[in-house]
Amino acid sequence: MSVTAAKGFRAAGVTAGLKPSGKPDVAVVVNDGPEHVGAAVFTSNRVEAAPVTWSRQVVTDGRVDAVILNSGGANAITGGQGFADTHATAEHLADRLGVSAGDVVVCSTGLIGELLPMPKLLAGADEAVETLSAEGGSAAAEAIMTTDTVAKEAVSTGDGWTVGGMAKGAGMLAPALATMLVVVTTDALIDPTQASEALRAATSVSFDRVDSDGCQSTNDTVLLMASGASGARPDPAQFGAALTEVCTDLAQQLIGDAEGAAHDITIETVHAATLEDALEVGRAIARNNLFKCAIFGQDPNWGRILAALGTTKAAFEPGRLGVCINGIQVCRDGGVGDDRNLVDLTGRDVHIVVDLDAGDETATIWTNDLTHDYVHENSAYST
Amino acid sequence: MSVTAAKGFRAAGVTAGLKPSGKPDVAVVVNDGPEHVGAAVFTSNRVEAAPVTWSRQVVTDGRVDAVILNSGGANAITGGQGFADTHATAEHLADRLGVSAGDVVVCSTGLIGELLPMPKLLAGADEAVETLSAEGGSAAAEAIMTTDTVAKEAVSTGDGWTVGGMAKGAGMLAPALATMLVVVTTDALIDPTQASEALRAATSVSFDRVDSDGCQSTNDTVLLMASGASGARPDPAQFGAALTEVCTDLAQQLIGDAEGAAHDITIETVHAATLEDALEVGRAIARNNLFKCAIFGQDPNWGRILAALGTTKAAFEPGRLGVCINGIQVCRDGGVGDDRNLVDLTGRDVHIVVDLDAGDETATIWTNDLTHDYVHENSAYST
Repeated sequence: MSVTAAKGFRAAGVTAGLKPSGKPDVAVVVNDGPEHVGAAVFTSNRVEAAPVTWSRQVVTDGRVDAVILNSGGANAITGGQGFADTHATAEHLADRLGVSAGDVVVCSTGLIGELLPMPKLLAGADEAVETLSAEGGSAAAEAIMTTDTVAKEAVSTGDGWTVGGMAKGAGMLAPALATMLVVVTTDALIDPTQASEALRAATSVSFDRVDSDGCQSTNDTVLLMASGASGARPDPAQFGAALTEVCTDLAQQLIGDAEGAAHDITIETVHAATLEDALEVGRAIARNNLFKCAIFGQDPNWGRILAALGTTKAAFEPGRLGVCINGIQVCRDGGVGDDRNLVDLTGRDVHIVVDLDAGDETATIWTNDLTHDYVHENSAYST
Repeated sequence: MSVTAAKGFRAAGVTAGLKPSGKPDVAVVVNDGPEHVGAAVFTSNRVEAAPVTWSRQVVTDGRVDAVILNSGGANAITGGQGFADTHATAEHLADRLGVSAGDVVVCSTGLIGELLPMPKLLAGADEAVETLSAEGGSAAAEAIMTTDTVAKEAVSTGDGWTVGGMAKGAGMLAPALATMLVVVTTDALIDPTQASEALRAATSVSFDRVDSDGCQSTNDTVLLMASGASGARPDPAQFGAALTEVCTDLAQQLIGDAEGAAHDITIETVHAATLEDALEVGRAIARNNLFKCAIFGQDPNWGRILAALGTTKAAFEPGRLGVCINGIQVCRDGGVGDDRNLVDLTGRDVHIVVDLDAGDETATIWTNDLTHDYVHENSAYST
């Protein structure tokens, strides 16, 4: 159900013909109120796509009535025409829905550097509006997929209110943010400031801690819409926890479906002096191609973990480091630990613990291995 | 001839049995003087191997009499025993050569986190000493290979003096420095300060601008030894130029033999506000796995170049960026340029020009594509 699990939302997913595959490629999610609170976070990539530039402006007043998302084209690095196309898309949908274009978020994903086929996209928007339904969440989740192999949906319920969301993303996944489009809806009564703060807090410990391939997208958007339709005003901490739960669930679904991945890798950095140190170490390891290839090869080559660690500015003494891989402490006190041949990497889940012995902070980064299939997907197709 | 091209040097390469393949794995280069000037630069990885820790100390007084290099084991993250083994290796060679252990540089390359088989290594050192010869340069260059497919040697001659060098390295190649071991010799008369300054200047525009896979090693060492045997004291600028020529030649040989590479990629960043900006942009692109996969697939996917550029702090306006791939300007004024289908990526050499339109600085980074063979080499074998 995802984005239509909460009351006050309708959604649709249709095939507009943007994708050569003929699969669904346009989704619309509408907030029917009574409230129309919106908040979003966007890519920190300085080369941002036209829809990101547009949508940043839309959310500044804390109101969002609807979002239209398309796969089959990123509308990134498309100059003035690209921005005009995004604007026209918002105007078109707003007109059909009887709302203001300034309250319509636009998201796009696909190949960079190509203009969108606007007649197809606008016809798709029309069809989506005609098929909007309170059961349309899954169709919307399907229509935003690119190289994803499965649709990603998650729901969490509170005391009389619900949070639900959908996500797409399988490559170009790296902090702040990954090539991901995420829409989360709730029928809880929350104000715009609370929505914005809760969303930032939730993304900082979920999507921001996913690093599939170290590559940051031009189009990332995480949108939260709140309808207030439940009439229930949740305790802020409980709402934040539910939102974080949905975001974390979706983030882990993204990593679980990362392009070509054969292992899901959790990198837990413990006893760091600061949270920033723990995150820097986790990301440095997550981005190390040699480490990622070793895990693909089921090779507990922990030297590559320490070589990656050594490139960071984190506080540590080399002689006090420890590394565990799936429960086997292969490195102890900065030297050789237990026999690396005891490590079992045949399963899909890999758990790395890096002990900096420098403080009390901990952070976890989720990543995946580097495989033949990743190279194949990203060399054989333009995405 | 490489390290024995200059007068005053003898070298040897022997098989000590450190490599399971049975290929040569121990090299020795001796400076017979009359002068014994030495300078070196090392990895900036904070997790450095025992031989790096040892050799940093050796070169502080500007004197080096000999270097022993082994493949088949990195002696990295091997604790106190690893350092004791490096010390014992230097003592052993010094004893055989009648020099001080404090003037013997040690270099190791291979798997991290394993102790070296010392009896084999020391027996190899003995055999190398027995076979030292003024024609031994190529044998030494062969003995330091790991996943290299060819030995790397280069020579440049001045007015009565010569600079020659050898290098190994095929993976873990990233700035400051790559997994590379490099020995450069000269018979020019230079003092330790000149040697050190010239070496730093030469490596900063050669080895430091190679970025094969973004992964930094624990063992990188570039050593310069000067014998003064030519009796010629070169003009410092001419010497610097010859040293830079040898280092650049070796650096490009490293990229040309990078693990699994199918394309050699030159990334030239022009019109940058600062040299640092130009280098940051070049490296960000060189480390972008999606870009590297696209080039492997002969796909001129320039959006991935701009997405990588957008993650940097370099000065630029998105609307003024330009990108040329092999002479076709696929991006102009931050938007779509000429038809990407005009780009020919069938050849091995790829030349990317990124125009920031923000100043007058230029820098070039050399990298390679990300291929199935890279994944295979680094997943199927522990290196």
